[in-house]
Amino acid sequence: MSLIILGSVAFDALETPFGKTDKIVGGAASYAAIAASYLHKQVKIIGVVGEDFGEENLAKFTSHNIDIDGIQIKEGEKSFFWSGRYHNDMNTRDTLVTELNVLGDFDPIIPDSYQGAEYILLGNLSPQVQLTALNRLRKRPKLIVLDTMNFWMNIALDDLKEVLKKVDVLTINDEEARQLSGQFSLVKAAGVILNMGPKYLIIKKGEHGALLFGENKIFSAPALPLAEVFDPTGAGDTFAGGFIGYLASTDVLDFESMKSGVIFGSALASFCVEKFGIERIEKLTIHDINERVQLFSSLTSFNI
Amino acid sequence: MSLIILGSVAFDALETPFGKTDKIVGGAASYAAIAASYLHKQVKIIGVVGEDFGEENLAKFTSHNIDIDGIQIKEGEKSFFWSGRYHNDMNTRDTLVTELNVLGDFDPIIPDSYQGAEYILLGNLSPQVQLTALNRLRKRPKLIVLDTMNFWMNIALDDLKEVLKKVDVLTINDEEARQLSGQFSLVKAAGVILNMGPKYLIIKKGEHGALLFGENKIFSAPALPLAEVFDPTGAGDTFAGGFIGYLASTDVLDFESMKSGVIFGSALASFCVEKFGIERIEKLTIHDINERVQLFSSLTSFNI
Repeated sequence: MSLIILGSVAFDALETPFGKTDKIVGGAASYAAIAASYLHKQVKIIGVVGEDFGEENLAKFTSHNIDIDGIQIKEGEKSFFWSGRYHNDMNTRDTLVTELNVLGDFDPIIPDSYQGAEYILLGNLSPQVQLTALNRLRKRPKLIVLDTMNFWMNIALDDLKEVLKKVDVLTINDEEARQLSGQFSLVKAAGVILNMGPKYLIIKKGEHGALLFGENKIFSAPALPLAEVFDPTGAGDTFAGGFIGYLASTDVLDFESMKSGVIFGSALASFCVEKFGIERIEKLTIHDINERVQLFSSLTSFNI
Repeated sequence: MSLIILGSVAFDALETPFGKTDKIVGGAASYAAIAASYLHKQVKIIGVVGEDFGEENLAKFTSHNIDIDGIQIKEGEKSFFWSGRYHNDMNTRDTLVTELNVLGDFDPIIPDSYQGAEYILLGNLSPQVQLTALNRLRKRPKLIVLDTMNFWMNIALDDLKEVLKKVDVLTINDEEARQLSGQFSLVKAAGVILNMGPKYLIIKKGEHGALLFGENKIFSAPALPLAEVFDPTGAGDTFAGGFIGYLASTDVLDFESMKSGVIFGSALASFCVEKFGIERIEKLTIHDINERVQLFSSLTSFNI
């Protein structure tokens, strides 16, 4: 029951009101794969890095038993690099530097050993690359989860709509749901988006939690109220990784299971924002995660 | 076990993207008392109206078994009148008209029959009037709930801080919590505000639900995801009325009970926004309310 995570594997340099970093490991696939690895034992990345990425950074995946056969290493080239500065409210940020480097002509090659995977997360990347990867799978996975962002809605909407037709679950944030659907009400937005292909839609609302739509039902998950958000980078990718990692581990795909997946994703994301980059999520135990999930439970449970 | 609701009893004229109204019954005490009346049998209003308010409008309270002995009727004067227009996002609005009329020199007289009340909601009004009413109660109620808004933080902060020292529960929205505390993080804001007097704080987040803080615990209540918000006027007052009405009916004041009160308040508020003014909440049954509360339960429950 293997789980493929497609996405960027990269370097980030981050600046928040709490401090700044040099180049550290980032990228959607990095966050998602590490998050998923706590819940599922057969996680496999597809991505590309430059020669600069280095063995010590690849070891961050292999030490979590993540298969990196699908990470292409381009000799003499550089890894994707993004640098950004968050504003005081931590909800808005400025991009300082974007160097596409090896991601510019990324051709997602699927190792033979990855074929037959039953779960795939198409992490945030160009819809064209997501589509190519999907088309190269000889067997359709049981569950295809797509993560994307407003950037692709702005420059590659037609491609994005093609991918949307082929996936089971879409995860986006509230503003992106409004942009994609042209509806302000999230309930109406969900109706429009579920007609574009996915059977389930997860709308991430940051500090306000997440909504899961599907099977004519709605589930509302809280976010953990935090005194500080130290660095929000990668929280969405971590959420998606936790979500699909949970589903792959239980291998049950009904609404109840999706709800639990949203809670596990939210719990992992709540760790992610406590430190810079992957620093917090690379040092978790399953005990930490279960304890956090229990916090989510006590946060919302009531008896009437 | 009587419950006093202090607040404005007024006329509103409303305009939303869905339509507009002539003068209709409004005012914090109107919404709160009607909401509370479904859950508790001894609701008593303190307020003031002009001669123009009329028997047929007072009957909206008496038909819900609400005691109106505490509503002063000023001969030859006019009721408080507010008119506003909501923007397309329904989260912002312009005030078109504010005529204080009888509210300008409102002296909150407590009828003898109201003395000994064990619950009081100090609905949104000038902190000075809230304080006067409180000081005129011969016995301190078991539970004092205060509702207020940014307007009073801007023009009467010192008076508001005086009232805050005397109350058990404060209900405000997220922006008001930030303004009152000077903290952006709602967790930090709650810490500051709970040091100002109240034992419990409820932060209302509109479409994102509500947070309850107290006893070093946090409860996160969802809002019902709605396709349309027809008219948000009075939703906060309705919430406060449902909250205290539930507590007065159970007469248990621990954190568990407060959580249930938040859910009942949220359920009543979710009805309020479905039509103009009090139109929807004046025609509820306890069955409607219990059904809506069950919806809240299914919206958030998960098993892990």
